[in-house]
Amino acid sequence: MTLEEAQAALDELRRQIDVLDLQILELLNRRAVVAAQIGDVKKAVSLPVYEPKREEEVFRNVTVNNPGPLSEAAVRRLFERIIDEMRLLQRERLSREQGQ
Amino acid sequence: MTLEEAQAALDELRRQIDVLDLQILELLNRRAVVAAQIGDVKKAVSLPVYEPKREEEVFRNVTVNNPGPLSEAAVRRLFERIIDEMRLLQRERLSREQGQ
Repeated sequence: MTLEEAQAALDELRRQIDVLDLQILELLNRRAVVAAQIGDVKKAVSLPVYEPKREEEVFRNVTVNNPGPLSEAAVRRLFERIIDEMRLLQRERLSREQGQ
Repeated sequence: MTLEEAQAALDELRRQIDVLDLQILELLNRRAVVAAQIGDVKKAVSLPVYEPKREEEVFRNVTVNNPGPLSEAAVRRLFERIIDEMRLLQRERLSREQGQ
């Protein structure tokens, strides 16, 4: 493979990454919207925000259905970050509402 | 809202989360495949694996195109984790190949 051929291949692969990233970004934001709706329902009937059992269910769903090449540990770490960010957004939202 | 209504709403919203998670999972794995292909091309022509400029491009792509509700900081942290995991997978793959 010449350096020029490699550069052309990289350009095309990076274009694919950029497209995938925007799809991932859209789904993460859609997930954040649904997570906020869950928070609203819980708040309305005073259910606890944090439910470790449900969290394990989320991890099970993604690790059991993981086709790879990402490892189970990697998938778990990725979804830990995702859940953390949704929780943080929720906290920011609640403290904004209380501040009003 | 009664507790029963809340429970039904939560069940439905969680079903939506589970569906979104499997879509996110599929895209993350597809991204890992493309990232591995990028690694192979770079290796073939001895280009450096880590390119900070390209990494900034990835962050710019997702922060500029972020519709919210996730904040720019949240999106950046999420994609830092994503990039980290792809890099780790790549390292594992390389050390497996060298071990053979």
